[in-house]
Amino acid sequence: MSGKFISIEGIEGAGKSTQLQFIADYLRSHGKQVVVTREPGGTLLGEEIRQVLLKPTDQAMGEDTELLLMFAARSEHIKQVIEPALKRGDWVLSDRFVDATFAYQGGGRGIDEQRISELASWTLQGCHTDVTFLFDLPVAVGQTRVEQRQQQKDRFEQEKQAFFERVRICYLARAKAEPQRIKLIDASQSIEAIQQQLSQHLVQLVDNAAL
Amino acid sequence: MSGKFISIEGIEGAGKSTQLQFIADYLRSHGKQVVVTREPGGTLLGEEIRQVLLKPTDQAMGEDTELLLMFAARSEHIKQVIEPALKRGDWVLSDRFVDATFAYQGGGRGIDEQRISELASWTLQGCHTDVTFLFDLPVAVGQTRVEQRQQQKDRFEQEKQAFFERVRICYLARAKAEPQRIKLIDASQSIEAIQQQLSQHLVQLVDNAAL
Ligand SMILES: Nc1ncnc2c1ncn2[C@@H]1O[C@H](COP(=O)(O)OP(=O)(O)O)[C@@H](O)[C@H]1O
Ligand SMILES: Nc1ncnc2c1ncn2[C@@H]1O[C@H](COP(=O)(O)OP(=O)(O)O)[C@@H](O)[C@H]1O
Ligand SMILES: [Mg+2]
Ligand SMILES: [Mg+2]
Repeated sequence: MSGKFISIEGIEGAGKSTQLQFIADYLRSHGKQVVVTREPGGTLLGEEIRQVLLKPTDQAMGEDTELLLMFAARSEHIKQVIEPALKRGDWVLSDRFVDATFAYQGGGRGIDEQRISELASWTLQGCHTDVTFLFDLPVAVGQTRVEQRQQQKDRFEQEKQAFFERVRICYLARAKAEPQRIKLIDASQSIEAIQQQLSQHLVQLVDNAAL
Repeated sequence: MSGKFISIEGIEGAGKSTQLQFIADYLRSHGKQVVVTREPGGTLLGEEIRQVLLKPTDQAMGEDTELLLMFAARSEHIKQVIEPALKRGDWVLSDRFVDATFAYQGGGRGIDEQRISELASWTLQGCHTDVTFLFDLPVAVGQTRVEQRQQQKDRFEQEKQAFFERVRICYLARAKAEPQRIKLIDASQSIEAIQQQLSQHLVQLVDNAAL
């Protein structure tokens, strides 16, 4: 019985952080050891890089630089957190993983998908999620939720609506291309309805892992 | 008449920083606009990354992470400093560039050269130095000079002698493989003798650029 690697993806305000705890609780109540983590970040160094990435700034960061920083944090995250946990047989639950890079840097910023793939292969060397929950909802709904959250917006949250539309479209294309791995969740529903939908996937996942 | 891109390489204490000013003065006295810069660093973001990289720390940073951070800083350096300067027709003089990554991360830390090459191609996309001065000297001589400098040692300077021996060997192998680009300088000589040797290369470089 080995652990599984799960990520949650989706645009700002989709409810990822809200449901992270629900998923972790579900898995723990089924006897799993769960490591909850997030990207960018997930390690001390990763959090430092996250600061550099998310800090609102006057000077635009180069697209390649942003990508290299993302993957630097991810490399550390894999080596220090994800791989050791999976080796122990724990489950890993991450608020975003590599799909976010394709969606934000690829779809959002327009960096060539092929270039992202090259860096992803270089860095991940086969590390991949078993299941990714894609929380999908209209951009405007997510934005309204974020505004109600009333924290100061970071550099990504300040992006325009059109940027998030491109991110969403890219996420949906990825889900379509990999339906086995990426489970589409209708995140415009109520918190309880989403949990219902998640449970149906989780029960299967736990059953399969027990085989 | 277009500018040239020059880097200075070599282990700690070789005299790179000392001779940087001499080279810049030489070029300026021959009517060149010179941008003096350094790696890791060279930009605001690069300096932030340099802090993360050089900070002495308890937790070992992953080799891939270190490499990705180096190239993130380098990407920014190229886009913000090096390419714009060369486009203006200025000369660029950098205290270290990509050869240092092959020497330190490849030779020193033992990261596979092929993996470094992949990331280098991905990031540089053809950007390369016209001339690299490799300041070569026995590791012990460099170490003695650094100790006399009496600043606090950073994370790289704390590495053991064997590490710097590997770095030196790698630098020398690169110089042998690319003798046209990499000019070997005997850095164990006096400051004046080194300047003499540098001048001979610089006079040619300035003449060629004027053609
Ligand atoms: N299904 C939902 N319906 C309505 N509001 C929600 C829902 N899920 C989360 N929220 C609220 O929306 C805001 C953003 O949720 P959050 O979980 O932080 O999103 P994300 O982490 O995806 O950016 C929070 O204030 C949260 O309470
Ligand atoms: N040719 C030389 N002979 C003796 N000492 C030198 C020489 N070049 C530099 N130094 C001294 O050695 C120390 C290290 O030189 P520095 O230029 O900082 O090296 P690097 O930048 O390559 O690490 C400094 O204190 C410098 O004054
Ligand atoms: Mg969140
Ligand atoms: Mg120096």
